[in-house]
Amino acid sequence: MSLQIRTVAVIGCGIIGSSWASLFLSRGLKVIIYDPAEGAEERFRRHLRDTWPALQVNGALADLSTENYEFVDNVMPSLLEVDFVQENGPERAEFKRCLMETLDQYTRPGVVIASSSSGLPSSEFIQLCRRDPSRILVGHPFNPPHLVPLVEVVPHPGTSATSISAAMDFYKFLGKRPILLRHEVPGFIANRLQAAVNNEAYSLLSRGIISAEDLDAAVTSGPGLRWALTGPVVTNALGGGGGAEGFMQRIERLGPSIRSWEEDILKHRFDWSDERLSLLKHEVMNWLETIDWNGIKEQRDWVLLNVLTTKSKSNSII
Amino acid sequence: MSLQIRTVAVIGCGIIGSSWASLFLSRGLKVIIYDPAEGAEERFRRHLRDTWPALQVNGALADLSTENYEFVDNVMPSLLEVDFVQENGPERAEFKRCLMETLDQYTRPGVVIASSSSGLPSSEFIQLCRRDPSRILVGHPFNPPHLVPLVEVVPHPGTSATSISAAMDFYKFLGKRPILLRHEVPGFIANRLQAAVNNEAYSLLSRGIISAEDLDAAVTSGPGLRWALTGPVVTNALGGGGGAEGFMQRIERLGPSIRSWEEDILKHRFDWSDERLSLLKHEVMNWLETIDWNGIKEQRDWVLLNVLTTKSKSNSII
Repeated sequence: MSLQIRTVAVIGCGIIGSSWASLFLSRGLKVIIYDPAEGAEERFRRHLRDTWPALQVNGALADLSTENYEFVDNVMPSLLEVDFVQENGPERAEFKRCLMETLDQYTRPGVVIASSSSGLPSSEFIQLCRRDPSRILVGHPFNPPHLVPLVEVVPHPGTSATSISAAMDFYKFLGKRPILLRHEVPGFIANRLQAAVNNEAYSLLSRGIISAEDLDAAVTSGPGLRWALTGPVVTNALGGGGGAEGFMQRIERLGPSIRSWEEDILKHRFDWSDERLSLLKHEVMNWLETIDWNGIKEQRDWVLLNVLTTKSKSNSII
Repeated sequence: MSLQIRTVAVIGCGIIGSSWASLFLSRGLKVIIYDPAEGAEERFRRHLRDTWPALQVNGALADLSTENYEFVDNVMPSLLEVDFVQENGPERAEFKRCLMETLDQYTRPGVVIASSSSGLPSSEFIQLCRRDPSRILVGHPFNPPHLVPLVEVVPHPGTSATSISAAMDFYKFLGKRPILLRHEVPGFIANRLQAAVNNEAYSLLSRGIISAEDLDAAVTSGPGLRWALTGPVVTNALGGGGGAEGFMQRIERLGPSIRSWEEDILKHRFDWSDERLSLLKHEVMNWLETIDWNGIKEQRDWVLLNVLTTKSKSNSII
């Protein structure tokens, strides 16, 4: 299915849209881009120039043109020729509803329309689609999307099995790691897991238990290192000596301790009150002001690329 | 301070104790090991043989002997000659209380006694120490401890500043990344953050939202990759465009969405009931049974070592 996709529409070309478009180009696809914002094309050209070297390392086809794209002022006529749509508009249900109506109306039958929505399920924005909302789903990427492989595929209850497998195949063809949600949940999977970590992180910081620098190190020098390689299920199974029994034994053995920590976490939850927000701000400010942000971004992308290359050389599920 | 440490006692030599002992040997220290369990010395020899190659890559001094350790049957006389104690006994307050009484009684004044306790604060096990509990603290490592740099240093309210900085310096000398908790909290930092992620992971699995394999990929191909490089604070600041303002802007802009996800997370919390445990088990079993556990462990250590080497070549805070 995915190999029949030759031309892709990128609707909305901010950071996420630009990253998608760069990735599509690096895989030899033709890209139609629509973004009415002033300067969008210039910003995209800059993004493409900056990310192209990383895309070359990270699986791009050889000798490709970076010119195989077209910025259009009027998207409707171009929609007729596209084989897949990746939508990256603002995260507002009313906005996406009108946009989806147009995309549904002007694309050919069977063309999958994927939304980069980061938490809004598509059942909240298909109401105005009169032709075929069964080819609409969420395909949610992660920052920086030209490097991070995860794409969350989230069908709404009426999305067809054909559209789901076409989207999964297409993302795999791009070198992505799509995961499939069986039911819609707000925030999908990865953002929910991040929200859980962040709430406890903000709680510990606003309570003055630890400095911001040490809190970040608690992740990057500890569990975060493992989470780049093994997820919650396998990490726990390995902690229990491996295997399905290892997983359940560990849960049963450590359960009482973990439940007592969870109770303490709940008792002190970060409640987003002005008081705790101000304590949090106080705790992070001084450290964040000492960081070289351009430097850290470049370093992050460089190390990330190395980690991905190392992981791809490993033959197991890591 | 740390450079005066030449001889270290390892009390309890299971997986954690063995890893500490191997690391100490790789840094040229003499190690006194006490573990009354049958076969402990043989298991340690195997562990040392298996981990030595990784320790060589990961900063061991050249031409070191792997023989510079002594298993003792009676630890008391040997305690007189040690400069630092790393205790790895069972995670039970009564047990650690008696052990700490002995360690406090037989070590020289000023020698720091660190416990590898993974969640029990030291204020719960210093009650019987009659000489100097101010040199007792927690130094909690992470699995596999010969590779993962994080050590959580958790003083009790009476731990002296000298003992805290001696422990921090010693762990840095070992190539570790110690973090300092200002106050004791149950589960310390990293295990609380892991508990937060795991609870939501178990909740999503037991609700049938996603398969175990895709849940793990949601972490290892997404936020987990970033968490190996940037912690919750810097990740959010980068998401907001960098800087201290980026962090606060992101929190303010995404706050309402995140709070709605948090509410949904709370509503569906994994409650450890038999019913949900059995649904969780059902969801993880089939996948875990297909995994080659020896293979995955080796691959994990190999990739982890590569990630650490790449990170150490980066000059910024990553």
